[in-house]
Amino acid sequence: MATVSLIGAGPGEPELMTRKAWRILGEADVVLYDALIDAEGMKEAAPDARWISVGKRAGRPAPEQAFICRTLVAYARRGWRVVRLKGGDPSLFGRLAEELEACRAAGLDVEVVPGVTSACAAAADLQASLTLRGVARSVVFLTPRLGRGEQEPCDDHWLQAALTADTAVLYMAGKRADQVCRKLIEAGRPALTPLCVVENAGGTGLRLQTTLMEVARYGLPPMQGPVSLLLGDAFADVRLAQNTEPLSVLEG
Amino acid sequence: MATVSLIGAGPGEPELMTRKAWRILGEADVVLYDALIDAEGMKEAAPDARWISVGKRAGRPAPEQAFICRTLVAYARRGWRVVRLKGGDPSLFGRLAEELEACRAAGLDVEVVPGVTSACAAAADLQASLTLRGVARSVVFLTPRLGRGEQEPCDDHWLQAALTADTAVLYMAGKRADQVCRKLIEAGRPALTPLCVVENAGGTGLRLQTTLMEVARYGLPPMQGPVSLLLGDAFADVRLAQNTEPLSVLEG
Repeated sequence: MATVSLIGAGPGEPELMTRKAWRILGEADVVLYDALIDAEGMKEAAPDARWISVGKRAGRPAPEQAFICRTLVAYARRGWRVVRLKGGDPSLFGRLAEELEACRAAGLDVEVVPGVTSACAAAADLQASLTLRGVARSVVFLTPRLGRGEQEPCDDHWLQAALTADTAVLYMAGKRADQVCRKLIEAGRPALTPLCVVENAGGTGLRLQTTLMEVARYGLPPMQGPVSLLLGDAFADVRLAQNTEPLSVLEG
Repeated sequence: MATVSLIGAGPGEPELMTRKAWRILGEADVVLYDALIDAEGMKEAAPDARWISVGKRAGRPAPEQAFICRTLVAYARRGWRVVRLKGGDPSLFGRLAEELEACRAAGLDVEVVPGVTSACAAAADLQASLTLRGVARSVVFLTPRLGRGEQEPCDDHWLQAALTADTAVLYMAGKRADQVCRKLIEAGRPALTPLCVVENAGGTGLRLQTTLMEVARYGLPPMQGPVSLLLGDAFADVRLAQNTEPLSVLEG
């Protein structure tokens, strides 16, 4: 085991962690963990380690990234084996580079363990494929950036990527989903593009089958967990499971 | 356990399978598996099951997709618990839809278990992040399609997606990497775009740090395993590990 292991915990459910991640977790002296959906379940892998929450959740105060990096390095220098447990896969929207850089600057031996990213877990929940022969040969993962008025103008760079890929999965897009969908339609993605909404991918939460237009018009119902939006023609034939209902029914 | 479980095995190394996949594998009566890098290691999870290779590898004869679907259904109808073990994540380039459809048409209870996709495993191998604050906010996964002369003209749809996303990961692109890189440069991606090459993501193989231009000019050295190409400014600062060398040194 390296001195510091930066590990993808998967989308939240402890069983969706890799066997490698679970093994390394068992060797940890200290675990710095994200706002994960089931940290309690994961603690079974390392009940005697010191578990420190460094979770960032939208709208709540959270440790600064610099604090996380300093803490990683401080424990490692004490000779403790450190696991940094990150939600999903560490290479996707995980601030991996900052933590790697801090470890390297301190001369620490570091390893990275990949994980299941929430787009893949969401697709499994929907029993849908992100790629589809003859329909979808490219998939983009991105976070929309809407801007907040004049101080922070809307950066439309993400829109181009969401337009050209056959399938797009939008991470962390639950908050202003109606605006995001309006932007996509204005930019040229057809209003009737199939759209699926998955709350708490890999766990329990709302699953909706809808369209860009419907979410642009009605927004989304309130949700607690992280939300993934999956859009493209690959989702035209998604079969509604028990807990999925058309959005307009929920709103009606 | 569902009658049929369509499971992502991850990039090949048994330890990169999820704990859930491993558990379900242990309950299988029959396992239909892809051309995985370490099927022997995975057999430890289900030594008494019947293991049937249905692997598709470029350039080699392989069972037809229809045969795989028929076999899945035939075993399930016998009352056997069937695991279909697919490389990587089943929702990405995995022909998931065909197998789901066959199971549903036969009225079988089916579940999907996500896995680590090779792009994430490759990023972990490189200790690089696919997204990077201020540099890369979108990542596209795709397979290039070059066409084979006049009978099958080149379909350039994939190129647009590869141009607009900040980071692009090209799956199954090892064979004609030089042509792929020339296409990308002609279409407008800068010739000096950083490019990493990972053979056998998550396992042992060649890792190269190079540029679009260099691969367009020199091609890639011969490789046995599946190859991922990762390109974009997110890879400008990748640190060469022991087994990575500039391409021009290998060619010289």
